[in-house]
Amino acid sequence: MKFCPTCGHPVGFLIPPGDNRPRAVCGHCGTIHYQNPRVVVGCVPEWEGRILLCRRAIEPRRGYWTTPAGFLENGESLQAGAARESLEEACARVEIGSLLSVVNVLHAHQVHVQFRARMLAPEFDSSEESLEVGLFEERDIPWADIAFRSIHFSLQRYIADRSRGDELLHFHDIQESPER
Amino acid sequence: MKFCPTCGHPVGFLIPPGDNRPRAVCGHCGTIHYQNPRVVVGCVPEWEGRILLCRRAIEPRRGYWTTPAGFLENGESLQAGAARESLEEACARVEIGSLLSVVNVLHAHQVHVQFRARMLAPEFDSSEESLEVGLFEERDIPWADIAFRSIHFSLQRYIADRSRGDELLHFHDIQESPER
Repeated sequence: MKFCPTCGHPVGFLIPPGDNRPRAVCGHCGTIHYQNPRVVVGCVPEWEGRILLCRRAIEPRRGYWTTPAGFLENGESLQAGAARESLEEACARVEIGSLLSVVNVLHAHQVHVQFRARMLAPEFDSSEESLEVGLFEERDIPWADIAFRSIHFSLQRYIADRSRGDELLHFHDIQESPER
Repeated sequence: MKFCPTCGHPVGFLIPPGDNRPRAVCGHCGTIHYQNPRVVVGCVPEWEGRILLCRRAIEPRRGYWTTPAGFLENGESLQAGAARESLEEACARVEIGSLLSVVNVLHAHQVHVQFRARMLAPEFDSSEESLEVGLFEERDIPWADIAFRSIHFSLQRYIADRSRGDELLHFHDIQESPER
């Protein structure tokens, strides 16, 4: 942020009184603009034991596989966001189940949240956001070509839980070092 | 948002190609500025069966009681944020436990996340953010003076779970009608 979204004048970064972190503060109108992590929400849709994955049509990680997931929108619950992303990215209608994972992606200023989900029908399709979409048996999951570490983590926990009949909640922190 | 944070020129609201929602788009540099929900994170600190609450020193809801909670910061995990808020608002050091609640506060564009927590010592104090801080027996919780509906919900679930020896995760949606 270089300019004030409220009045258009330049902002500077300084620690406001009573605060302990540098914030973007407008030199003209004085508004403090806080910047906070965004939530990425998605789900692991399942149909008769197979898992729905999408091959990304857009950067970052175009061509790699992911569960349906994307940024939570204003006015939307986490569950509604997960279901929307499944519909938008995979043309698949799902019923959202239990919370699977919460991954703090620290360097990206994101929190990645994944739910378990049940497909309402074995219907799916590619989309503007997905080059292809498919239902995968566990042995066929393309582990080497998963788009994001948080998705890799979540899928592995999903499979491990399922084999034991569990539905646990898993936390994980990801912090990439600056040189990567 | 009225002006572009990147170049300072006016933004307009329109639906970008491939999108389905109006976004703030700069008429000069073309940058699309997405606006997404913020995460408010906190915890229910407990010491020998009593619960730590803070009476707010700042608006909104100054003078009302809450658990320690505040906006998640960039580069911070949910758990670290909950512990930081406990220290900042109540001068209390805690060990963060299981996830208690996730409340979608739809009209405020916020997700409120609360953890269970154990105080590391029976030490706490008021702060710039809290007029007073106290440990409450269950029967003394000021239910009529709790600052936010999400906190009321979370405290009630905390107490109900504790009485049964459970530590469940509770979801809730709050949507205030526009006229309120």
